[in-house]
Amino acid sequence: MKKIGVAILGLGVVGGGTYRILTEHREFYRKTQGVDIDVVSVLETNPACAQTLGVPEEKIASNIAEVVCNPDVNIVVECIGGVTAAKEYVLAALNIGKTVVTSNKELYAKHSHELEHVAKRHNAGLFFEASCVGGVPIIRTLTDGLQGNKINSLIGIINGTTNYVLTKMTNDGLSYEEALAQAKTLGYAEADPTADVEGFDAAYKLSILSSLAFHTKVPFSKVFREGITAVSKEDISDGKQLGYVLKLLAIGKNTDAGIEVRVHPTFVRRDHPLASVSDAFNAVFVEGDAVGDIMLYGRGAGSLPTGSAIASDIIYAATHSDIKYSTFKNGAEAEKDVNFADDFISAYYLRLSVADESGVLAKIASVLSKYHVSIVEMIQREKAGGKASIVLVTHETHEFAIKNAVEKINSTEIATVESVLRVVS
Amino acid sequence: MKKIGVAILGLGVVGGGTYRILTEHREFYRKTQGVDIDVVSVLETNPACAQTLGVPEEKIASNIAEVVCNPDVNIVVECIGGVTAAKEYVLAALNIGKTVVTSNKELYAKHSHELEHVAKRHNAGLFFEASCVGGVPIIRTLTDGLQGNKINSLIGIINGTTNYVLTKMTNDGLSYEEALAQAKTLGYAEADPTADVEGFDAAYKLSILSSLAFHTKVPFSKVFREGITAVSKEDISDGKQLGYVLKLLAIGKNTDAGIEVRVHPTFVRRDHPLASVSDAFNAVFVEGDAVGDIMLYGRGAGSLPTGSAIASDIIYAATHSDIKYSTFKNGAEAEKDVNFADDFISAYYLRLSVADESGVLAKIASVLSKYHVSIVEMIQREKAGGKASIVLVTHETHEFAIKNAVEKINSTEIATVESVLRVVS
Repeated sequence: MKKIGVAILGLGVVGGGTYRILTEHREFYRKTQGVDIDVVSVLETNPACAQTLGVPEEKIASNIAEVVCNPDVNIVVECIGGVTAAKEYVLAALNIGKTVVTSNKELYAKHSHELEHVAKRHNAGLFFEASCVGGVPIIRTLTDGLQGNKINSLIGIINGTTNYVLTKMTNDGLSYEEALAQAKTLGYAEADPTADVEGFDAAYKLSILSSLAFHTKVPFSKVFREGITAVSKEDISDGKQLGYVLKLLAIGKNTDAGIEVRVHPTFVRRDHPLASVSDAFNAVFVEGDAVGDIMLYGRGAGSLPTGSAIASDIIYAATHSDIKYSTFKNGAEAEKDVNFADDFISAYYLRLSVADESGVLAKIASVLSKYHVSIVEMIQREKAGGKASIVLVTHETHEFAIKNAVEKINSTEIATVESVLRVVS
Repeated sequence: MKKIGVAILGLGVVGGGTYRILTEHREFYRKTQGVDIDVVSVLETNPACAQTLGVPEEKIASNIAEVVCNPDVNIVVECIGGVTAAKEYVLAALNIGKTVVTSNKELYAKHSHELEHVAKRHNAGLFFEASCVGGVPIIRTLTDGLQGNKINSLIGIINGTTNYVLTKMTNDGLSYEEALAQAKTLGYAEADPTADVEGFDAAYKLSILSSLAFHTKVPFSKVFREGITAVSKEDISDGKQLGYVLKLLAIGKNTDAGIEVRVHPTFVRRDHPLASVSDAFNAVFVEGDAVGDIMLYGRGAGSLPTGSAIASDIIYAATHSDIKYSTFKNGAEAEKDVNFADDFISAYYLRLSVADESGVLAKIASVLSKYHVSIVEMIQREKAGGKASIVLVTHETHEFAIKNAVEKINSTEIATVESVLRVVS
């Protein structure tokens, strides 16, 4: 039976889950996959982690060189996170021809080009299913399941932390701060939640998924990104009143105008399938030209779900000897000259604070119409101190048109635009 | 560039869709997959089909021997359907060492053992993603995405025709006959709808999916099967009143008591994710021991979605030279000695016609309790002619207990059980 030696770098949440899955399923994999997957080495600076998992002492390496030079190691699993050490270690493994499996979306989104180049040069495999949407096999679906399609778009909830926060704000009427505090208590948010709440995490994933879906490199730097930190209780409840639920969506589109990649809080209609994806769950819609719409749904993070994706990559690598570069295979470098669309088309939700006097609405409507923005629905509400609040949803228009209209409205002193959110119907 | 010659047997709905996809995407596949996929031969007895698609005359073969002996044909795509000719042709292709891609669930469910044996002997590939759930890559997900998991269960809506009929009965209050007639008009049901409405189609697919999920052969003959032909408007509306929606579910479970595979109309709670899978859409929930619950959703049939799965298999076969047998790889023959659980556990919905007199309910409850069946909720309704109708939902109990209790009730003349449906909460 084929024997595959695995080394795990980092035994935190994901690395620990991976260790457990691989050791507990070893006999199962021998039986069902015909391959003997043995964790032969781990690298972890905190001895408590290895101890808790019961890792035999002789398997604990003291440095990266010991891991990558170990002739029994065929596959190196990187679960360190961050970019500095992770990149150095992954390159060390690839440079010596070891196959790498990583769950590191930041590393992959920022440095895939270099990593793939080195992997190719040394004939090493490079797999990253675990970098996106936890145990949901979205990458395999794009590369091995829908590869007969031209993918027109993908749209998803791909960050569990923000989805948890927005779900709590929506269902329990919490403020952003209250919901975030709850998420931290439950372990859904990290002590420093910036990567999640500012949309970086979703943007890393969108960069990776769009590159695969659209067969070109979609650099992370090209992803339009807006987080959820400015979302107010008022927005959530106004949206609710209009029949919308707020979600942090990642949207990738391949349009005639170019590729469009954006992460931002977005209102979706209450009956939209993504509206009912709650708490820390993730879901991705993919539209292919032959298959139509398909959706994948599941836990987007966590020790065992992410470990499941890593185990899947390890088995895939162990049983598909001629497939080494998930991205290369899919021609991610095929096109260089891609136009990234900034001035995308969307419907918009605007919340304005206005003087509570006659004629204001007409003036706002007049400014909007000057920018060819038309209104679908509107609610007006009295506020204290001679002020009123106007909430409106527009028809689809250009991002730049809204930006210009908002600037114009704010400059006229008839109203202040307090909130601009995009709407998907 | 690697060149792959494809022959398509049958240019009906699926074969025609496949022809279109392959010819229209040829340049796209060259660019993104690095492989040149050329349809070099088709076999179709109706000349109009080939003509409509614009197949060049020199590509139209006159018999199967001409197809399989054509040295330019590497992959034979079987889209004939049925078992007799399809099996003969598939075997002819495999016997000469050609890789086969099929969308034929009946053929595969009934004869996979023989087909895989022949494929293995002749070192030919055998792929069948298109046999289950149209363009949704559920087979690839089981074999290449979740293979790190022990799969505990899969539960799905995997037949579009019956889902369309039940959706119309539920939403528009149609009778079974009315809804079926509508489905026929729209092309969702065939002239002879037996395979769909009696649950055969779903049972074929469940046999295939369970074999992959549970790493053993789950013969079609072992699938408990009950169709939707006996479902009444009354059941649908009574269920609605209790908060349930009726769906034809395919359920596969790997339990301590053995493997459980069943297809039957089932009430699901209105807020269950499967309740909102409407019309001809399909969805499958898979529960893995590491990944937890994941769901895949999409169009389960149709020309282009099914063609998408076939194209995916062709590309997969063309680019994965060392993976030939989807089932073998996953060790489907590993275990021989499987206990198929008949006496499964479920909650139940019962509709009874009773004499409208006091004491009847107590007598029914007493019979049920004798078989350890307890009631969760109940509604009673007057009917004409001194009769009343009782509708009840039980706690989970054994299938055999319900069967015995129903037999007992029917023998006592206090009531007639008019309907027994299973319930998933």
